[in-house]
Amino acid sequence: MRDLVLRHVEGELASGRLHVGDHLPGERALGAQLGISRPSVREGIRVLEAMGVIRTAVGSGPDAGAVVVANPSAGITSALRLHLASSTLPVADVVRTRVLLETWSVREASRRADVGVLDAAAALLDAMDDATVSLKDFLLLDAEFHVTLSRASGNAVVAAIMASLREAIHGYLQPAAAGLPDWPAMARRLRRQHRNVLTAVRAGEAERAVRLVTRHIEGFDRTARLGASGRLS
Amino acid sequence: MRDLVLRHVEGELASGRLHVGDHLPGERALGAQLGISRPSVREGIRVLEAMGVIRTAVGSGPDAGAVVVANPSAGITSALRLHLASSTLPVADVVRTRVLLETWSVREASRRADVGVLDAAAALLDAMDDATVSLKDFLLLDAEFHVTLSRASGNAVVAAIMASLREAIHGYLQPAAAGLPDWPAMARRLRRQHRNVLTAVRAGEAERAVRLVTRHIEGFDRTARLGASGRLS
Repeated sequence: MRDLVLRHVEGELASGRLHVGDHLPGERALGAQLGISRPSVREGIRVLEAMGVIRTAVGSGPDAGAVVVANPSAGITSALRLHLASSTLPVADVVRTRVLLETWSVREASRRADVGVLDAAAALLDAMDDATVSLKDFLLLDAEFHVTLSRASGNAVVAAIMASLREAIHGYLQPAAAGLPDWPAMARRLRRQHRNVLTAVRAGEAERAVRLVTRHIEGFDRTARLGASGRLS
Repeated sequence: MRDLVLRHVEGELASGRLHVGDHLPGERALGAQLGISRPSVREGIRVLEAMGVIRTAVGSGPDAGAVVVANPSAGITSALRLHLASSTLPVADVVRTRVLLETWSVREASRRADVGVLDAAAALLDAMDDATVSLKDFLLLDAEFHVTLSRASGNAVVAAIMASLREAIHGYLQPAAAGLPDWPAMARRLRRQHRNVLTAVRAGEAERAVRLVTRHIEGFDRTARLGASGRLS
């Protein structure tokens, strides 16, 4: 029953009858059209919402109801988070996947030199330089910086996967960072590493950017694990 | 409301109180525990099912109800399919992402030489050699072969993403293949290319495997696009 709603919406999107920004028909109308009950329609709508395909809003204004949106990383993130929690996907494999996607991204970004996106990345680093920024905000800006670098690759699929991976492991990074014996020293190191990666990308030095981003990701992961296991504290 | 169920199950998985193979409490009990209505619980359950985290079965036997399963690629696939349908994610970006993930996979697989997984890949190629195999089954075996190669990399996250990408574009590949002027000739070429990739991986010739798999993916994509646009027919 639920699958009927998904398949219907997928078909409407693929045929071009439904676009980003359009409203879905109301639950009653959709149920009648597909020959299923209203609760079944609602279950399908919830799944589409979790997939980042629609956004629902309550009320009766022009924005009420289910609107088609484009948030591919939301759906992938939810699935990844749950499977990381169940240990089906090891965190170590996520780190290696990040290295793979991010090295590819900075190599492509160095070649493309998309100034607009790279300026946005620089603005995030400026915000991270604020000495009063909280640990939580620092890590959010950090995640956003890495996702922005992957957008600079020009590949929407890689950027969506990266955004998902980064958000999925966010819950693991924060306690790890908070548990470090000297977070301010680590924050200084991360700031410097980010600047160096961005400088290499802007200069078109692809292989240098690849080396720097690899050391940056693997270094933080190693330190966080050591910190978490108490060997550094 | 729905998010409560997701967050609850994620927390139970992360804390180790819930494992793959366990049953979730019944809808009524879960609703009482979380203080939400039974329809809200059911919506949450449907989302978890779409994410590949639980499987539900009707009836009253020992397998009835919601059981925790580990199918990370199912959830990612659903999200990718929908966003490919809405053109948020261009197919060209998917093809480039496949090249990135598969070249990395065959390189790793060449080094690891996991004989069990590589034998499974060979068995799929044997099945594809059957002259009576339908176009549909050929493409399913083809997808399975590529996913098996990515499993041979030893990275569960890369394998899950690859399985999702491959399944998400399956709907686009079948009409493209069916529209080719000489499918039997293409099938022969694909069979030969698959064998060559696997031989290189088994021999530990990583860079040769990388070159062969790149040519294989990009070649089929180019031909399929030309076929679809009528320039080859």
